[in-house]
Amino acid sequence: MKKFAVVLAGCGHKDGAEINEAVSLLLAIDQHHCEYQCFAPDRQQTEVVDHLTGKKVTGAKRNIMTEAARIARGNVLPLDQFKAEDYDALFFPGGFGAAKNLCDYAFKGVDMMVEPDVTRAILEMHEAKKPIGAMCIAPVMLARLIPGVCVTLGAEGSDVADHVRAWGAEHVQTENGDVCADNEDLVFTTPAFMLDATLKDVYDGAYNMVEAVVDWIEKR
Amino acid sequence: MKKFAVVLAGCGHKDGAEINEAVSLLLAIDQHHCEYQCFAPDRQQTEVVDHLTGKKVTGAKRNIMTEAARIARGNVLPLDQFKAEDYDALFFPGGFGAAKNLCDYAFKGVDMMVEPDVTRAILEMHEAKKPIGAMCIAPVMLARLIPGVCVTLGAEGSDVADHVRAWGAEHVQTENGDVCADNEDLVFTTPAFMLDATLKDVYDGAYNMVEAVVDWIEKR
Repeated sequence: MKKFAVVLAGCGHKDGAEINEAVSLLLAIDQHHCEYQCFAPDRQQTEVVDHLTGKKVTGAKRNIMTEAARIARGNVLPLDQFKAEDYDALFFPGGFGAAKNLCDYAFKGVDMMVEPDVTRAILEMHEAKKPIGAMCIAPVMLARLIPGVCVTLGAEGSDVADHVRAWGAEHVQTENGDVCADNEDLVFTTPAFMLDATLKDVYDGAYNMVEAVVDWIEKR
Repeated sequence: MKKFAVVLAGCGHKDGAEINEAVSLLLAIDQHHCEYQCFAPDRQQTEVVDHLTGKKVTGAKRNIMTEAARIARGNVLPLDQFKAEDYDALFFPGGFGAAKNLCDYAFKGVDMMVEPDVTRAILEMHEAKKPIGAMCIAPVMLARLIPGVCVTLGAEGSDVADHVRAWGAEHVQTENGDVCADNEDLVFTTPAFMLDATLKDVYDGAYNMVEAVVDWIEKR
């Protein structure tokens, strides 16, 4: 049975992992008869946001891994324990947590840096020639770290598509449910809530992305 | 387009709505081309539990509706605004939140009471002869409030199955993905994480439950 690692950036799209994307991804993995192990950085979230009002909660603190455990039903490991040799693929759902806790894209835009533990996980998988999948805003981390990689962040003409090109990567426009497959760098991305999507669209994209990764592994 | 109300008891299975069940339910509704509107009580959770350690966090406070907004992407209404006339069906995912925030089954067992706002929503739907669906532990509320109703909470021989009978309701054993359909009281229940289930099993149960409700509405 194939074993996939999933990195969660908290729990809730405004300050953590997008919950609908994360569950769609885990479901798609289970439906493909593969196992998943969730990981998260064991440190404080950059911020805590009230998901009703959209406002930052001053002084509030939540730990990324502790909150991720709400999605993973407790079964989440610290990201620094991740080893590429133990997993067949690595996945990132989106949500602002990916852009606030795993890198600082939400704050710095084109000048962003990916956190060292996340950088290590991505580059170890890439060097091991194993597939990496990412949804929604999470592909920015792959575009920043993997020279010339091809990813999607939904529509063309957006700032984020321009940033991807500024980093020397390629951006491809996609529609709901589509997967951008870079078969050279083994990077598989889907737009999810970067587009005007419903939950069914997000799930379709997650399912198709997992299927593309499983197909690549089986045909290798 | 049919419109379904979904009551969320927070965000995270140890003190709120079971996230995997909630998203599976919302996804199944969207896949059946129906709309959903999430609701939650606008009050403090009974407790806050660390989902890594399983321990209650002393002094921590979280609002049920504010946390539910993490699942619902902000689109959640106070439960006291729910009107049966506006919806074609009412659904409850499970998780300890259902048994701690919507009723006190987690603390009182067979002596439990359902919260007044939840009681009103359930009885208004029941009196309007509209379907109610519930997953995992949430069917205890229907068994407590609707005399003689037939529900499932997974396996036979459990305390909760005995409690259901003590309240004058009927309990039916089910397997992963099954739906217990009470076509007289219009109550549709599925065991979800009451059984040893994976996410795929939980989704299958949610999908089948929504399908049973949609079928009933269309054949009416």
